[in-house]
Amino acid sequence: MNTFGTKLRLTTFGETHGVAIGGILDGLPAGVKINLEFLQNELDKRKPGGKFATARKESDKIELLSGVFEGISTGTPIGFIIYNENQKSKDYESVKNLFRPGHADFTYFYKFGVRDYRGGGRSSARESAVRVAGGALTQMFLDEFGISVESGIYSVGKINHSANLDDEVLNLDFEFAKNSEIFSLYPALEEAFKEEILKAKNAHDSVGASVVTLIKNAPVGLGEVLYDKFDARIAAAMMGINAVKAVEIGSGTNSSASFGSQNNDFINKSGFLSNHAGGILGGITSAQDVVIKCHFKPTPSIFLKEPTIDISGDETICELRGRHDPCVGVRGSVVTTAMARLVVADMMLLNASSNLANLKRVY
Amino acid sequence: MNTFGTKLRLTTFGETHGVAIGGILDGLPAGVKINLEFLQNELDKRKPGGKFATARKESDKIELLSGVFEGISTGTPIGFIIYNENQKSKDYESVKNLFRPGHADFTYFYKFGVRDYRGGGRSSARESAVRVAGGALTQMFLDEFGISVESGIYSVGKINHSANLDDEVLNLDFEFAKNSEIFSLYPALEEAFKEEILKAKNAHDSVGASVVTLIKNAPVGLGEVLYDKFDARIAAAMMGINAVKAVEIGSGTNSSASFGSQNNDFINKSGFLSNHAGGILGGITSAQDVVIKCHFKPTPSIFLKEPTIDISGDETICELRGRHDPCVGVRGSVVTTAMARLVVADMMLLNASSNLANLKRVY
Amino acid sequence: MNTFGTKLRLTTFGETHGVAIGGILDGLPAGVKINLEFLQNELDKRKPGGKFATARKESDKIELLSGVFEGISTGTPIGFIIYNENQKSKDYESVKNLFRPGHADFTYFYKFGVRDYRGGGRSSARESAVRVAGGALTQMFLDEFGISVESGIYSVGKINHSANLDDEVLNLDFEFAKNSEIFSLYPALEEAFKEEILKAKNAHDSVGASVVTLIKNAPVGLGEVLYDKFDARIAAAMMGINAVKAVEIGSGTNSSASFGSQNNDFINKSGFLSNHAGGILGGITSAQDVVIKCHFKPTPSIFLKEPTIDISGDETICELRGRHDPCVGVRGSVVTTAMARLVVADMMLLNASSNLANLKRVY
Amino acid sequence: MNTFGTKLRLTTFGETHGVAIGGILDGLPAGVKINLEFLQNELDKRKPGGKFATARKESDKIELLSGVFEGISTGTPIGFIIYNENQKSKDYESVKNLFRPGHADFTYFYKFGVRDYRGGGRSSARESAVRVAGGALTQMFLDEFGISVESGIYSVGKINHSANLDDEVLNLDFEFAKNSEIFSLYPALEEAFKEEILKAKNAHDSVGASVVTLIKNAPVGLGEVLYDKFDARIAAAMMGINAVKAVEIGSGTNSSASFGSQNNDFINKSGFLSNHAGGILGGITSAQDVVIKCHFKPTPSIFLKEPTIDISGDETICELRGRHDPCVGVRGSVVTTAMARLVVADMMLLNASSNLANLKRVY
Repeated sequence: MNTFGTKLRLTTFGETHGVAIGGILDGLPAGVKINLEFLQNELDKRKPGGKFATARKESDKIELLSGVFEGISTGTPIGFIIYNENQKSKDYESVKNLFRPGHADFTYFYKFGVRDYRGGGRSSARESAVRVAGGALTQMFLDEFGISVESGIYSVGKINHSANLDDEVLNLDFEFAKNSEIFSLYPALEEAFKEEILKAKNAHDSVGASVVTLIKNAPVGLGEVLYDKFDARIAAAMMGINAVKAVEIGSGTNSSASFGSQNNDFINKSGFLSNHAGGILGGITSAQDVVIKCHFKPTPSIFLKEPTIDISGDETICELRGRHDPCVGVRGSVVTTAMARLVVADMMLLNASSNLANLKRVY
Repeated sequence: MNTFGTKLRLTTFGETHGVAIGGILDGLPAGVKINLEFLQNELDKRKPGGKFATARKESDKIELLSGVFEGISTGTPIGFIIYNENQKSKDYESVKNLFRPGHADFTYFYKFGVRDYRGGGRSSARESAVRVAGGALTQMFLDEFGISVESGIYSVGKINHSANLDDEVLNLDFEFAKNSEIFSLYPALEEAFKEEILKAKNAHDSVGASVVTLIKNAPVGLGEVLYDKFDARIAAAMMGINAVKAVEIGSGTNSSASFGSQNNDFINKSGFLSNHAGGILGGITSAQDVVIKCHFKPTPSIFLKEPTIDISGDETICELRGRHDPCVGVRGSVVTTAMARLVVADMMLLNASSNLANLKRVY
Repeated sequence: MNTFGTKLRLTTFGETHGVAIGGILDGLPAGVKINLEFLQNELDKRKPGGKFATARKESDKIELLSGVFEGISTGTPIGFIIYNENQKSKDYESVKNLFRPGHADFTYFYKFGVRDYRGGGRSSARESAVRVAGGALTQMFLDEFGISVESGIYSVGKINHSANLDDEVLNLDFEFAKNSEIFSLYPALEEAFKEEILKAKNAHDSVGASVVTLIKNAPVGLGEVLYDKFDARIAAAMMGINAVKAVEIGSGTNSSASFGSQNNDFINKSGFLSNHAGGILGGITSAQDVVIKCHFKPTPSIFLKEPTIDISGDETICELRGRHDPCVGVRGSVVTTAMARLVVADMMLLNASSNLANLKRVY
Repeated sequence: MNTFGTKLRLTTFGETHGVAIGGILDGLPAGVKINLEFLQNELDKRKPGGKFATARKESDKIELLSGVFEGISTGTPIGFIIYNENQKSKDYESVKNLFRPGHADFTYFYKFGVRDYRGGGRSSARESAVRVAGGALTQMFLDEFGISVESGIYSVGKINHSANLDDEVLNLDFEFAKNSEIFSLYPALEEAFKEEILKAKNAHDSVGASVVTLIKNAPVGLGEVLYDKFDARIAAAMMGINAVKAVEIGSGTNSSASFGSQNNDFINKSGFLSNHAGGILGGITSAQDVVIKCHFKPTPSIFLKEPTIDISGDETICELRGRHDPCVGVRGSVVTTAMARLVVADMMLLNASSNLANLKRVY
């Protein structure tokens, strides 16, 4: 339901045009130093604004309500809240009774039998701010173990879409991405990516993008056999992000086109000689880099006339107003980082009791 | 851990070279007619044997131990068991202390600190027989609602690998696949697929494949907001199958290369005019066909010399013997069907209480 | 962890001397009328104040943050917050480094390795305000089915402690309890109960109490076999309330002293002829009244000198100041109602998919 | 549902008159020495037979099917099976269509809409053999940490029923109980207990009993705040055992009759000076002995004429035949031990990640 994770659990609430959004991060071990500045910075990365994102204005100031005492996590749940500021619900009056194509309006209506027509309500990508907050708090835990998680834009529309990640993975510049306005993983492609986005925007349209996420220094052994494998959890986490339609691990879609003799990663004393597995064997981390690729569809909110029906079943035309991201993958990349952080930490907590030797170190 | 599902739960046990494998299907509603013949037939589809699968001989006879009375499910857990017959553990003596490339040997060893070297133990694809059994029992429930789940082979190696599923989905012949020895979705490509598999086999190698799974007549409204979305559950279910490295829904990887005006599915009185969404909007089923594509890596067990290390860290050469599938995707396609069945039914049970109107029909 | 329930889930956060307490109620079906006045009234029942409770001043004003639109639940999570107003942390300076007898200071310190010494932090009974809020929201759902849950004080100290509930259950006056300052179930005993509480209070001591909770009109069939039985869930819910040390169902402790011929409830056309079972057979509701009795220990906070040790292990004397309930069972009875409401509703949601006939009414 | 535990999970199947009963113990850490003799011995304790139990003949031979390799747990699920031998279903022909008073027939029928009339089916106490097996496997893990769990009979009918456990706890002789045919905790009362049971048996009746369970050497810090407290888990585990109607921790029901100055356990350098808390403070273990008392109602199966109705609602008389325990608490005491073992181990696994210091010992 609205809880993500097993031992480290993020439970969230909030609609895009409601009073506030927020969450409860439960299970963060006691003793973690809480860095409020880092937390706000991470939120700022995902924050609306700029040429390449929606113009909606939200300061996204977060307030921690519990679970931290004297700068340290206490082991009790961390409640936090982000008040909504810029809820222009009236933008939605015109679409109040119709189903916006590509949106969850249709399915929510039939699932719940009631409708919160204000900008998607709970299904809005605005909720992802809470995920980013949960991920940032989790990163403070991961920092204690030297584990990093980073993401960036790999392709926009057709630009770089067909490049083989197996070949490209060493060329990706995550440092550059951090400071790129669109989190581009390639200095050389940043401008082309931007142009593609603006081209879509100027045509009142939107464009898809793919995102690569890299986890470094995850310990060996993470992932629960047999139905909570690390890669299964990653797949659920990523596919559950708004607009993601495909998730690949390591060689991903290319693996189905290759031979075993190409795809197997051989090993010598220094470690693995390649990483087609994307850091995961049998669903469990091998201590190699975990490589994940997510495909974001184009933002469904576009400013063109779209045929649809209303809640009575009558045909009509959807004409959106308001403010929307021309390429949801850009800000979505910040969310992939957050989700990967939550998965790694949850799997670390779960794995801590995998064998007797570990437990004898604890008890 | 070893339980899949929330309200309909499959919990499984068993190693490939142990006494038996089996499971417990818990939460199947009372009143479902249990068809033992269908159950065994589904297992037979996945059973080893033939030119395109491992030569290991297992009759895979299943015995139901509980939860069924007078041919009807009672609502209590259905226990079942499949005894292993053909455990040639001695095939594994030579690889007892080394890590087979592409296998879970390495990660299981470091996770648990102990090693069951007999053919992968728990991580063997043999376990998937239990998933198929669970899925078959679940289909008997889905039959009550006219819901079908089917899978087949979409590509083998490079053959048909780059074909666009959006264009191809109406050409897929699931009826043909049922009777195809390799579950080919294309009559015209079956021979080429077979040749590709035999080419790999004859080269002591293996080859990857992609699989398409189609769910028809799933009710609208399945999927729990916000972290148990239908597509997130499907992604976890599929990525958790041995050898799957990528999962796509609807337009999948193509969605990241398209524009919103192309990708949105417009609606008229008769319904949706296209299905780029693959039957899922906002993570919830829309009553359109659910279209899923899974990419299977080539079987990691190949019969070529592979550099690796042993459990002491010393370099060595892995030379496998034994019996293995040249293309694990073929039998894997039966497992994708099973997992999709489990997800659909579980989501139906979960969704039954989504709104007051539904509950008033029950109480 | 900090989540209660399976399909209807209350996740909470907050420390007694932190910024705020609050929670997220997830899984409440869409379509429930939300009555804000009832919600605040329920909180007011548990609110500190008066001669028989702590003098701490908290207005306990609740704010709903999400999940409700136009007065109706939307099926998405209901976030809510209660800001703390009267955090006299300085009362705790003197006990900062010692373990208060009967409190969780000792166990939290050793569990988490850090200490929030301000009044028990998370372990304070203040958190129960959030349970009461969750329970009140849940009652709005139960109202749709005519289900009521009520509680009151059955005994205080030795007064009425040994009375046999089997004999007394028809004499309990839940209407009277509603308006009694101490929720007394007996008009005739109210004064004696009050005197017992004040006697303890004036002696700087505290006193225990027992509470009876009655669930009326719960549907038949609630409770999941075999480890989520209705009575097991009730037992966990009640034993998890601060200060509860025993939970009885129906004849409870008396059942172990009786013969089968006395204890079995016979049945005729009109229904059961007695209710030793307390409305539960085989862990599942029978549609009879569910009768629960909880035993609250005396408030551990007393104002007498108590030998203890500090966090360095040195012996010292604990002398509490501050404001505490002389009989925690009184306000605790409001919490038992809340927990029972959460259990009933959760079990209704879970049970909705127990058999095929129910599901065919939904799909 | 049919799974008990969070990180250490016992999932079970089986009906009393079906083919077999069994289960899957998932989450037992790798590296635990598996003692098959101990396992069978524990089952033998609960096994039917003798003057004080049912005459049903079951050898209760258990077979482990997975999860153990070379005498050591591998970290993968341990499947096990116990075939039923002595299913005299025909004993139940006469009660096929009526509801036996005190049994789950009524509630199962209305929950599931179908009926397995053979001796209670899933609701039979026979299922508890599986719990005992799970508990015994778990004890092998607890042995690594010197943790013991023991149970015995505290009272039978009115004999010793009103004795105050606070006074008696040091007089209980768990060593004696081990070898007592009825697991009596008092050498001096054993004979009286036996007579009470035989008196009931000879009158074709049954009698209740109370059981005390003692956990020694549980580590400090077990129990998850706030809704998976150790005592809440114990309460659920125990109340979920067939026939248990009340659960007490430490002073239990007496705590509601006492003053804070009596009930608080003071502390000095050597530890706690008393144990009214029963080893649990704030829901978390304090490393004192955990003391639990369970009240078992008399076996509902008696051989007297009992008024009841049949599934059509017509009045009739229930006259049971067959073989039943005259005092279900006797064999039930073996089950309380098993459940306590499962709770302690599960809580140890969960607690392993409670703070950063513990995790740094693991990673």
